[in-house]
Amino acid sequence: MINEIKPRSGTAFKMKKGERLKVTDPLGQQVADIYCFNEHNLNEFLSSGRSLDYNESLTFKVGSKLYSNQSNVMLKITEDMVEDHDFLLTPCSVDTFKYFYPNEKPVPGCHGNLVNAFSEFGIPEHLIGTTFNTFMNVEVGVDGSFKVLPPKSKAGDYTIFEASMDLIVGLTACSAGESNNFEYKPINYEILK
Amino acid sequence: MINEIKPRSGTAFKMKKGERLKVTDPLGQQVADIYCFNEHNLNEFLSSGRSLDYNESLTFKVGSKLYSNQSNVMLKITEDMVEDHDFLLTPCSVDTFKYFYPNEKPVPGCHGNLVNAFSEFGIPEHLIGTTFNTFMNVEVGVDGSFKVLPPKSKAGDYTIFEASMDLIVGLTACSAGESNNFEYKPINYEILK
Repeated sequence: MINEIKPRSGTAFKMKKGERLKVTDPLGQQVADIYCFNEHNLNEFLSSGRSLDYNESLTFKVGSKLYSNQSNVMLKITEDMVEDHDFLLTPCSVDTFKYFYPNEKPVPGCHGNLVNAFSEFGIPEHLIGTTFNTFMNVEVGVDGSFKVLPPKSKAGDYTIFEASMDLIVGLTACSAGESNNFEYKPINYEILK
Repeated sequence: MINEIKPRSGTAFKMKKGERLKVTDPLGQQVADIYCFNEHNLNEFLSSGRSLDYNESLTFKVGSKLYSNQSNVMLKITEDMVEDHDFLLTPCSVDTFKYFYPNEKPVPGCHGNLVNAFSEFGIPEHLIGTTFNTFMNVEVGVDGSFKVLPPKSKAGDYTIFEASMDLIVGLTACSAGESNNFEYKPINYEILK
């Protein structure tokens, strides 16, 4: 069953080990932030720092693994039509809106949407860290400075993640204009058993 | 008072808002991992993702701010003789030793040393995330892959961090050979009031 995440919203759901999550950008140029917890131990969660350590690259693509803070693989990328994602930056939030878009009325952002979605599983806000930002296009310059550019994903492009343990997964359709070329589109997802 | 952190060890201490932490590499080519908590709210802690967001660069130098997961400034860099640090990677640990140095007997590493040091303040392991790795030299290539190279710090070089809130700070002398050119030297630090 294909599920739609409406623009500027998010959801959370369980995935069993071996199941695959297909994240599709139905209209193109949208970003989907992913965060996850070990279903059986909420003190084990996604870690950008560990994943970068073991990946030895800022680039994630087919074969890349996303690790927990306990150095266990949580998700593996098994198919990927975009190969341009970000694992450096935290999800957009009321605070980042105030900072980067001072003239806009702040919205909950992906962080706020994940807080709401994970709260249904009893997960507190402070455990939600740096998300894996599917389709997010961050260009790093030679001096280390970076820019957020429109995603390279085209309508219908997708990435598939296989769960390496039982997970509670949060997923969003991005709220930050700079990340999605100010188009705020939906995201589709499907659990493949 | 100048304090020495012996090779492959770590410590934790309180710093009040406005105090400055001088981290010195006394012999050169050593790395010191920093992590910190809001002394009055242990659910507020250092966030690499938030800091990268607001810094808009992988490069940290004089004027750069290190943010918490609640988007508050925790530390500001006020003096810096090296301007080459890392805020991408988690501290070395038993797990990273097994992965990167399979022929060595694993040691607690900076992560284990921080776990021990922070435990005296009642802080649990799972809250210790990606550290600010002072003097750590990570070179990112155009394809996103990166290499850990010997630090550029020379004997006596230092960086000074000013506390923007009351903090509990953990600090290490790095245990991972690749990060410190396999010399495992001490680190000195001083709190300037």
